[in-house]
Parts: sequence; structure tokens; C-alpha cells
Amino acid sequence: MFTDQNLTLMTDLYQLTMMQGYYHYGKKDRTVVFDLFYRDNPFSAAFSIVAGLDQAIEYIQNLHFSPEDIAYLQSLNIFEADFLEYLKDFRFTGDIDAIPEGSIAFPREPLLRVKAPIIEAQLIETALLCIINHQSLIATKASRVVWAAKGDPVMEFGLRRAQGPDAGTLGARAAVIGGCIGTSNVLTAQLFDVAPKGTHSHSWVMSFDDELTAFRAYAELFPDMCILLVDTYDTLGSGVPNAIKVFQEMRDAGVSSKMYGIRLDSGDLAYLSMEARKMLDEAGFPDAIISASSDLDEYLIRDLKLQGAQISLWGVGTRLITAKDCPSFGGVYKLAAEDDGTGVMEPKIKLSDNAVKITNPGVKKIIRIYDKQTGYLRGDLIALEDEIFDESQPLEIFDPENTWKRMRFKPGTYTLRELLTPIFRGGKLVYSRPSVMEIQQYCKAEQATLRPESKRLVNAQTIPVDLSQSLYDLKQAMIQKFSAEE
Amino acid sequence: MFTDQNLTLMTDLYQLTMMQGYYHYGKKDRTVVFDLFYRDNPFSAAFSIVAGLDQAIEYIQNLHFSPEDIAYLQSLNIFEADFLEYLKDFRFTGDIDAIPEGSIAFPREPLLRVKAPIIEAQLIETALLCIINHQSLIATKASRVVWAAKGDPVMEFGLRRAQGPDAGTLGARAAVIGGCIGTSNVLTAQLFDVAPKGTHSHSWVMSFDDELTAFRAYAELFPDMCILLVDTYDTLGSGVPNAIKVFQEMRDAGVSSKMYGIRLDSGDLAYLSMEARKMLDEAGFPDAIISASSDLDEYLIRDLKLQGAQISLWGVGTRLITAKDCPSFGGVYKLAAEDDGTGVMEPKIKLSDNAVKITNPGVKKIIRIYDKQTGYLRGDLIALEDEIFDESQPLEIFDPENTWKRMRFKPGTYTLRELLTPIFRGGKLVYSRPSVMEIQQYCKAEQATLRPESKRLVNAQTIPVDLSQSLYDLKQAMIQKFSAEE
Repeated sequence: MFTDQNLTLMTDLYQLTMMQGYYHYGKKDRTVVFDLFYRDNPFSAAFSIVAGLDQAIEYIQNLHFSPEDIAYLQSLNIFEADFLEYLKDFRFTGDIDAIPEGSIAFPREPLLRVKAPIIEAQLIETALLCIINHQSLIATKASRVVWAAKGDPVMEFGLRRAQGPDAGTLGARAAVIGGCIGTSNVLTAQLFDVAPKGTHSHSWVMSFDDELTAFRAYAELFPDMCILLVDTYDTLGSGVPNAIKVFQEMRDAGVSSKMYGIRLDSGDLAYLSMEARKMLDEAGFPDAIISASSDLDEYLIRDLKLQGAQISLWGVGTRLITAKDCPSFGGVYKLAAEDDGTGVMEPKIKLSDNAVKITNPGVKKIIRIYDKQTGYLRGDLIALEDEIFDESQPLEIFDPENTWKRMRFKPGTYTLRELLTPIFRGGKLVYSRPSVMEIQQYCKAEQATLRPESKRLVNAQTIPVDLSQSLYDLKQAMIQKFSAEE
Repeated sequence: MFTDQNLTLMTDLYQLTMMQGYYHYGKKDRTVVFDLFYRDNPFSAAFSIVAGLDQAIEYIQNLHFSPEDIAYLQSLNIFEADFLEYLKDFRFTGDIDAIPEGSIAFPREPLLRVKAPIIEAQLIETALLCIINHQSLIATKASRVVWAAKGDPVMEFGLRRAQGPDAGTLGARAAVIGGCIGTSNVLTAQLFDVAPKGTHSHSWVMSFDDELTAFRAYAELFPDMCILLVDTYDTLGSGVPNAIKVFQEMRDAGVSSKMYGIRLDSGDLAYLSMEARKMLDEAGFPDAIISASSDLDEYLIRDLKLQGAQISLWGVGTRLITAKDCPSFGGVYKLAAEDDGTGVMEPKIKLSDNAVKITNPGVKKIIRIYDKQTGYLRGDLIALEDEIFDESQPLEIFDPENTWKRMRFKPGTYTLRELLTPIFRGGKLVYSRPSVMEIQQYCKAEQATLRPESKRLVNAQTIPVDLSQSLYDLKQAMIQKFSAEE
């Protein structure tokens, strides 16, 4: 777990060799702007949820080369002595702006914008991508699972199948941001002040002489979180009847439970939950919870609901914590502008034969457009930083790939919001870091600005992300210029 | 990054509630045996590579509840005071045996066997699974990628797309165990004494006035690792010609380079590499390396080779570090035996309607059978710990699901090897931990014991994993007994 760790060397070797190059050629202090963005939403979704900023902040704050780090780099025999000397006092001194955690984001939008001396901006690329890519992936996946559960609480249960301790611990953090009510991972609960969740396992049942004794023992000790796992031997034949017996004994003894019920972890969850529901209802326990956990994801939860499954609490593991159907988030980090030597930020562009891979040049901001009446998100506009947009004026936006596709907004029908928020200024943190549960609330509000059509699991309605006229013109001019030079 | 971190609370909440239960009911010291095993090889492979043991050892050694941990647990209001008091001196006091890292393993074999008081064995389940599942997954994936590269070196380049810092750093460790020659992740290189690898990025080229100047600057500074990225503007039109110009200038200046060449990161790698090879050869640089890195995996590398691609150094990122086509390894941790109260270990079994989910009861060991002449692995035998196998006797093994499938070995034609190795005894480490590069060498030797048919990417020939007659009889008797009781 990387909290408070020095991850300075957690970077690609080439960042360090390039830093050496910038140092050697006297370019290290040239100010540059890098954009961290992605090109495609994961899961064929219409949006992503941004997460990981808080760990990115800690990473930046802890950034320094320890004497051991410098000795190690020296041992590689590829770095010059004056460069290694310089690293001793290395700190991040630049500016970072970011879309706040829990926000809805779309392809090509800078999730993070770094303005710093090139030698600093280069170093931090890899760790920033690693942190933001990972947590944005899991937060987005979680939002889909929670959406499919239609208001039922979802618990994150994936630690044992996560891709290592951070993936399990920070992934659970991201899952809570995306809407999970809690996690089985006690370390996540402790570090981020979220609810730890859990029941008991098959080995508990097997460690007693029989299932009923095991259930009684658990109920006696944890009457207020008495969810009994009923599938160790025979779900409907012994598990549910024994659970009912224990619930009856609790009731007879006058024990009132805040939360009680059963957990299904194998078999046909639709059938078993419906049968168990009948048995519990007939025994006089209509408020007994039926929870389930067995290789679930958003698609299975949707299908189980369609099949009438009587499950009201979901434990989701492997497929959430690994984002199994799409286990990587394709964030990249590209040069957008560079000081021309006189203090003016000159736009930079990366060309490609593949049109969607051509970057957007210049120092940019993101303007989000809402319908004033409904509050729904209508579209985003990527613009140059010094452009001014005035809600009292008509607004026209257009698709940068199909420029005849235009949307017009009359004054009074729309509101605007700028997404990029100052995080660091001159290396100093200027951002007040919200708690994970605050981020979860914000994320919920963010998702409420999306029409249901954009939250569908399949064929979700995309949201337009347009370029301002000025940015579009700049980009076209730069493409023309490079093409003419060829 | 979790090295030297206290991960004691990185466990599922239910482990702690069950520990409270064992404590409360006076069962905490009952000795149990848990097996950590998996049911299916990932990637439809015929085997897995085990990895992560060294981090599991560190986890066990660091295991303790800090005062902050205990205060946190107390704040949850679900634990009793005497239990929390007990946790203050909690340490792992049991035995652990494991298959060494880098070993070939097969489904249903205990990769790790824990014999400990139930209260200790229960706690460590989640973290052990997380660590072993993750690294075994990536080591196995890496072995496939390296196999597809047919002797070409493979570098691990995935940090930026990994599922968090540990996934990037420990994943790179596992990738080196699986056969990668090095990693771009400098922290992995530092922590585990493996080779850091890298070139330069597009932003290096873009930060200079032109590509040729950028290449010259890089070559001057890093003549011995001079791999130039040629696709920033136009691979064959400018990138390769500019690289050749720089190589010629180096040669003219009498600079001898240990390693020089180009890197392709986009476009049609087969076509571009063949054209680049021709250009480099014609210019007199037949030993210039052509490396490639663009969403590669074992299947793409195999296809590129079939298409005649002239690539001799592979950088593999996202699809290796996330094991993209199968991002989880299904390790589980099941109770196999329990002290009957008199010091005798009583076998335990977990039944299931699904035959492959029925566990193997008892305290077990794994015997590997090799062909004496060829050294090839012929099969594995899961046996009870006290069984004795004698190479001077004939050996017959049989498929536990299709018992008519039998293999017979005459004395002198086979050799045996026991896989489980003592790691902890009475909580003390008794194992000499090999370095990552030693594990890599061992892993290479392990893979050499597999026939090529078992290493195929598709339809690989499976290896028999049989049960000894005694274990088979025990299992059948226990299944019969439970069925009779129903």
C-alpha cells in the first residue's frame, strides 16, 4: 500500500533518461503543458467517472529522490554527476489543474493538466497515469454495477482477486466513489473512513459440528449484522431452514436485530433467492435480507432482476475489482504547449494517420453545458484557456469531426460550468481535499445530470464533446502547416 | 507499494468477525490446515507459473495489530474487549509450506498450505490470495508472451496502465519471473535488482525543433542504449532516415554503441519493420535493433512473426501488466483438516453440486513425476502427507474423474520430486529466499520440463494431475458419508 510512500522511482526509465537530456541540453526549466486524457470510455460506456486525484496529490507531495534513490541511479552508470546532484533538491514546483474526483468525464478532455518545467512534468507522467487510470477504471465500473442494482446497496468484495494490495485497497476506494456502500477490505475502511462490510465464510460453518450450531454461534455474537451464509451444505434443504430456526430463536429471546438475513454464494441465484424469499416470508421474516455474491457484475445483476430474483443486497468481487471485461483505462499524457523562449506558451500538436489520435493543441479548459430547466448535461466544450463564454449570449457548438452537426443554445436556456480546478500552484497544494464519502455524494449528483439513455449498459447515448471555434481553427491550422511541410 | 508495510488490516471484515467468534467460543487455538489452490489455469493454458511467495513471506513477517489498528477495530463497536486485548500480541505462529516461486503448477494443487491455529489461519486468507493470485497471473501471462517471442528479449512496459502502484511494481516483478529481461519500472528494478529498460518518448522529439536534432541529442548522451523512437512524424519518411543519419554520424565519429536501433510504436508493425530492416541493412546497419511496442501480447507477437515482421526486441505493456484477456487468477483457500481435539488432524471436505468444486480432504503433498530419460514432466500426484512413494517400485496413477484412464511407470523410467517446501515453522522463516533473477532462471528450467505441446497458446496439451489411491479412497468415503446423511 503506497500511502505516504516515496514513489519517485516508480516511473519509466525513459522519463529519467529524458530528464538527464533536458538537464544536459539546458532545457530543464522550459515551461510545458501536458494533458492527461483518454480516447475511449471503458465498457463501451458513454462516460467515465474520474478518480485517483487524492493519491496523485500525495504522490506529488512526497516526490523527492532519497539518497538511496540517487545512489541507485548512479549505480546504473548512465547518468551524469551534475544531474544526480541536481536531483538531490528536486521537488515539484509547477501547477496542476484537474477535474475533481467523482466527476463525469468524456474522451479527449484533460482530466489533469500539468504546467511545469519540462524536467518535472516528464518525471510524473507514469505515476499519474498509473494512479488515475486505475481508480477511474474501477470507479466507472462500480457506477455501472450500482446503476444495474437499481437502488439496492452494493458492497465491494474483491480484495482476494485484486491485482495486488493497492489494486484491492485503492480499487475499493474507487468502488465506493462509484457508489458502493462499503467494502470488505478493512484497510480501505480504516484509511478512507468508509464502511467495512462482511458476513462469514464456509470455513466458519465447517469449523462447527453442524450448520445450526455455527449459525447460532454467529447470531449470538453479531445479532446486528447477522447475515448467515446458507450454501455450505444444501441451500434450501438445510441452510435456509437452519437460518429461519435461528431467526425464530432470536425473536423468541426478544433480540431485535438491526440487520439479519441470508447470503447466497453459489447455485442458481434467481431460483434460490425466490424460494428462500418464500420460506422466509412464510416463517414471518419478510424483512430478512437476501444477499448474493457469486461472480456478479452489472450484466448478471440486470439479468437476475429481470428473472425476478429476490436479492436486495449485492456483494460484488472479482469482476468489479479487476474491471474484468475491460481491465485497463487508456489514459495518455501528451505535450500540449511549450514556452517559446519568451514566456509565450506555444501550442504543440502530435499528428497521427489516425484522426482520433491527433492531439488538441494549446492550454485548454473544459466548459460543461447544462440545460437550465432539467439540469441535464447537454455537452462539453473544450476551449482555449483565455476564451470567455457568456451565458447571456447565444451559444453554438459543433462536432469537430462532422462540422455540420451543430447545437444551439439560447440565453436563459443553459448554464455553464468550468471543470478544471486548481490543485497545485507553484508546487503548493491549493485544493481542499474532500473525503471519500463526500466524493461519493458528489459523484451521485454528477450521475444525476445524465439522462438515463446515457447510463444504459449497452448502446448508451453519447454526449457531444466539441471544440470551441478558436481551438478548432488552431488545430486545423497546425495540421495544415505540418502537412504542407511534408 | 507495500514493501515493509503493515497490511494486517488488509483483510476481509469477515475474517476478523470469525476470529472474534473463534476467540469467544474457545476455539482459537484449534489447529487447522488450509490449502490455497486454484481450479482453472488462466488464458486456457495447460499450466500456471506460481509467484508472489516472497511478498507473502514479508506480509506474514510484518503481521501485527498496531495500537492504531486496535483503536480502529474498537471504534467499529462489534468486537469484545478481551478479543481486542488478545490482538495486541497477535503474531503468526504456524507452519507454511509452498511450491517455490517460478514453479509450474496445475489446478487443484495446494500452492500454499497453512497449518496454524484457526484464528491465525483465518486472518491471512485474504492477503495471501491477493498476493499469490496477482503475481501468479502476471508471471503466467509473461511466460506466454516470452514463449511467443521465440527467444527474442521481451521488456515489461506496462506501469502506466497497471491497476495501481503495486500492480505496476509487483506485476513487473512477476513479469521478470515469467521471463521478461527487464522492466521500464525503475522502482521494480531498484527493489528487486532487475534490469531497468527504456528508450525515449514522443515528447522528447517534440521538445526539439526537429526530429534529427532530437535524435542527435539522444545519441550523444546515451550512445550505448541508443534506441530511437521513429514514429513521431512519419516512420519511413523521416523517422528511419533520420535515425540512419545519426547512426552514420556515430560511426563516422568512431563511437561504438553496445546497443542501437529504432523503436516502432504505431502503425502496421509487420510492414514498417520489414521496410525499416531493408533501409537499415542497405545503409550498413544490419545489427541495428528494431524494437516494437504497441498493444502487444502473445497472440500479436505470434502473428507478427508469422507475417515476417523484422522485430527482435519487444516492449509489452497493457495487455501483460493487466493480463487483459483474463485479468484474475482464481485462487481459493479452503479448509482441508482440523485437529479433532486429541491432536489428530481430521480431514475436512467442502461439498458442491459441481464435482470440480468438491475439495480434496486431508493434509496433502504433491509428487511430480518426470520421465527419467527426457526430463519431461509426465504428471503430478496429489497424495496424503504420510504416504511414501519409492522410485524403485512400479507406479500407477489414474484420473480421479475417469478412473479407467491409467498411466503406469516402470522402475528406472521415472523420477519423483516433492513440490511443497517448508517456508515457516512455528512462525519462524525457515526458507532461504532466492533473488528474482534466480527465480527467473529456475522458472526457465521449469518450463523446459514441459513438452512444446503443453506450451501452445491454443489447445495446449493438459498434464494429468491425479490423486493417490489413499486420497481418492478418503475423498470418496467422505462424499458417501455426507450423501448418506442427507
